[in-house]
Amino acid sequence: MSPTPARVTAVDTHDIRFPTSRELDGSDAMNPDPDYSAAYAVLRTDAADNTDGTDGTDGAEGHGFTFTIGRGNDVQVAAIHALRHHVVGRSVDELCADPGSLFRDLIGDSQLRWLGPEKGVMHMAIGAVVNAVWDLAAKRAGKPLWRLLAEADPVWLVRQIDFRYLTDALTPDEALGLLRRGREGAGERTARLLAHGYPAYTTSPGWLGYDDAKLTRLAAQAVADGFTQIKLKVGADLDDDVRRCRVARAAVGPGVRIAVDANQRWDVAEAIRWTRALAPYDPYWIEEPTSPDDVLGHAAIREAVAPVKVATGEHVHNRVVFKQMLQAGALDVLQIDAARVGGVNENLAILLLAAKYGVPVCPHAGGVGLCELVQHFSMFDYVALTGTTEDRVIEYVDHLHDHFLDPVVIREGRYTAPTAPGFSAAMRPESIARYTFPGGTFWAADLAQQTQQTQQKGHAA
Amino acid sequence: MSPTPARVTAVDTHDIRFPTSRELDGSDAMNPDPDYSAAYAVLRTDAADNTDGTDGTDGAEGHGFTFTIGRGNDVQVAAIHALRHHVVGRSVDELCADPGSLFRDLIGDSQLRWLGPEKGVMHMAIGAVVNAVWDLAAKRAGKPLWRLLAEADPVWLVRQIDFRYLTDALTPDEALGLLRRGREGAGERTARLLAHGYPAYTTSPGWLGYDDAKLTRLAAQAVADGFTQIKLKVGADLDDDVRRCRVARAAVGPGVRIAVDANQRWDVAEAIRWTRALAPYDPYWIEEPTSPDDVLGHAAIREAVAPVKVATGEHVHNRVVFKQMLQAGALDVLQIDAARVGGVNENLAILLLAAKYGVPVCPHAGGVGLCELVQHFSMFDYVALTGTTEDRVIEYVDHLHDHFLDPVVIREGRYTAPTAPGFSAAMRPESIARYTFPGGTFWAADLAQQTQQTQQKGHAA
Repeated sequence: MSPTPARVTAVDTHDIRFPTSRELDGSDAMNPDPDYSAAYAVLRTDAADNTDGTDGTDGAEGHGFTFTIGRGNDVQVAAIHALRHHVVGRSVDELCADPGSLFRDLIGDSQLRWLGPEKGVMHMAIGAVVNAVWDLAAKRAGKPLWRLLAEADPVWLVRQIDFRYLTDALTPDEALGLLRRGREGAGERTARLLAHGYPAYTTSPGWLGYDDAKLTRLAAQAVADGFTQIKLKVGADLDDDVRRCRVARAAVGPGVRIAVDANQRWDVAEAIRWTRALAPYDPYWIEEPTSPDDVLGHAAIREAVAPVKVATGEHVHNRVVFKQMLQAGALDVLQIDAARVGGVNENLAILLLAAKYGVPVCPHAGGVGLCELVQHFSMFDYVALTGTTEDRVIEYVDHLHDHFLDPVVIREGRYTAPTAPGFSAAMRPESIARYTFPGGTFWAADLAQQTQQTQQKGHAA
Repeated sequence: MSPTPARVTAVDTHDIRFPTSRELDGSDAMNPDPDYSAAYAVLRTDAADNTDGTDGTDGAEGHGFTFTIGRGNDVQVAAIHALRHHVVGRSVDELCADPGSLFRDLIGDSQLRWLGPEKGVMHMAIGAVVNAVWDLAAKRAGKPLWRLLAEADPVWLVRQIDFRYLTDALTPDEALGLLRRGREGAGERTARLLAHGYPAYTTSPGWLGYDDAKLTRLAAQAVADGFTQIKLKVGADLDDDVRRCRVARAAVGPGVRIAVDANQRWDVAEAIRWTRALAPYDPYWIEEPTSPDDVLGHAAIREAVAPVKVATGEHVHNRVVFKQMLQAGALDVLQIDAARVGGVNENLAILLLAAKYGVPVCPHAGGVGLCELVQHFSMFDYVALTGTTEDRVIEYVDHLHDHFLDPVVIREGRYTAPTAPGFSAAMRPESIARYTFPGGTFWAADLAQQTQQTQQKGHAA
């Protein structure tokens, strides 16, 4: 029992890195050797329900993170650290009642804003902190985040959104209308979601580093596991890609969707040429064909490669770019990312923009914890915004889930709806201790081994 | 005499902050209290011509920096630090012969790229390092940077540009053609530039924090000093802005251009309404009317507010966004910034894009050292690309120049062409020592004073 209202007492940060590059998991045309990493933030509070303060499941800690792929994770940690004065000392109840007030303070910090605005390292740091607040809020409400959002007052939800730079595409009144309409039948859809989950697709077969035999085996396994869509990385070599698409199509048959993902490899003309060359194997969408900043380029590509659909979003840095993608008709599929933009508040804005323009959202996931986070947005979208899962799938990659306290559960190619309170963001304390860079037990041992090998080479020479 | 080729031995970083917020210099609608700062990088080498290693004027050190406005400068320093493994150990001769190879390595770092790509903190850090290499290259060539660029082989210059994501707007062949055409008459223009300088405009009268009397006095002074264009910050309050535009117009008369600058304050409809309300005072351009990410928004505003021109660029984060601004007809005036994008190489690409689309470049400057840097681009543009200064002016703000070893010189409202070798980027060692945060002599004394005041208040209470 605190005599005074509970406050945020600290923002702890952790530089956590997994040595994924050693297995070529996650390899694609632009990212040949990622070490999947997280710049991880824990909001600590003095709330009385802080039963033990360590496992992140109680209502006194909020967890959030930015996903990175290795080098630079320290810069991202420094950026989160630079935001702590906005959070420490704030009332836990007030923060949880209105996370949007913190989001506005963070994007509005007049000095930090210069480092973006609203893009890159600082904006992802804002997302980590804001997401940690929502994790805290959902825990304290005793609900998984998707349910907190789906059951929230639409007027309150609209107030959680910063409409600056959006009103030429979406006004607060329009957003309210969408949310009120979305609420009709929400109870029935909640029951269906809890019973049947939300459809997923899998990227696990298609990494560039895998040979044809492994691709065939994993693609066939994906179909056997109940997935109706898989994804292949492309963009390094056209002949290879044609062969890999043929191999994948042969493995899955005609009824399964194959998305292809170029990870920003191409210029506009090259994207058109390459996608057309893959068309005989009926790719469902071409993902990130060019720079994520290139709204007009995506629009030109989309016009040229139809009926192949154009998808992008994992590197789209904020709502202003998504707005233009929709205004320009640049997208068939909008791929939100849970840890790229400024957190839950900005993703609510993006979901509403997509709903207004009638473009399905198929989130980007994988990495470290992105599946855990982003499922909440799709489930909210289904239950209380668009009301449908038609042509909607959440990416699923079977990596690193065991490091989370509330990992995603996939059954028959579908995400099972989380029921534990929070945003599914909390990592296991033992994983944090092991993979903290460079001092965690894994990296310390790794360094010792490398040092020993170098010394042995020195002796041999 | 080094027995081995000279190498880069270190990238030193400095967190330098000036207490400008105490004077309201630099105040605008989005940045009420900036502390102008620099995340400053020094490439150290073991080149034999390192005569003293401290003053930055010799040919063995390259200086570069990111301008920030205070908080977060430490994050920017961390980002520069994260790039050092790409630079340290490289041959000085090879780097200076081909800075583009480093630029490609930096933007192509597959792990760091995730933190952008090519935007925000990491991209500005890349710009600082790349600019430091060009500073070094120009010193070793014994030329100011503008002259090194203007006299470089056009084929070599084209190779300095990364055309990825640009070829739908500008191909290498087109760039080569522009540069070859630009070279005609360059000798004569060099002589004219050295004799007469390059036109400037001044923002010093128009900061939001100044009252009408100060605005009138400074605006009249600007005209007396030979400026033919001034700039006013707007966007906080419409009635105030109407009054300030009236006051400024009265002070300068009808023949002087008045640019107005909203610093991203508005949504699209608001920008149109506000700009039209200022139209009776004949504003020459409206600068940053909305988000710098909003290509389509700028295009809509431009169409609606003509004949008032639309200008933006100081926060446009890379060449891909500039490309679209030009493709969409979103700009009348393109405002490059010397320390926002990835350095000289990317600014060359942007200058060439602007030349192809026939849009005049009027650089953003001010801050810390931005005038010093960006003058080189306009002078290159005049001498060896577009060949004209018509409707082209470089921003000038009379702040903080005395901290630089080769400060800009303004005569009769024009930038005097620098003649000292290098990029004019080197700050005085005594300024670095005084304003390093938080340990420099200024900040240490400031902290001591604040501590004392706090203690005195404590005693009084």
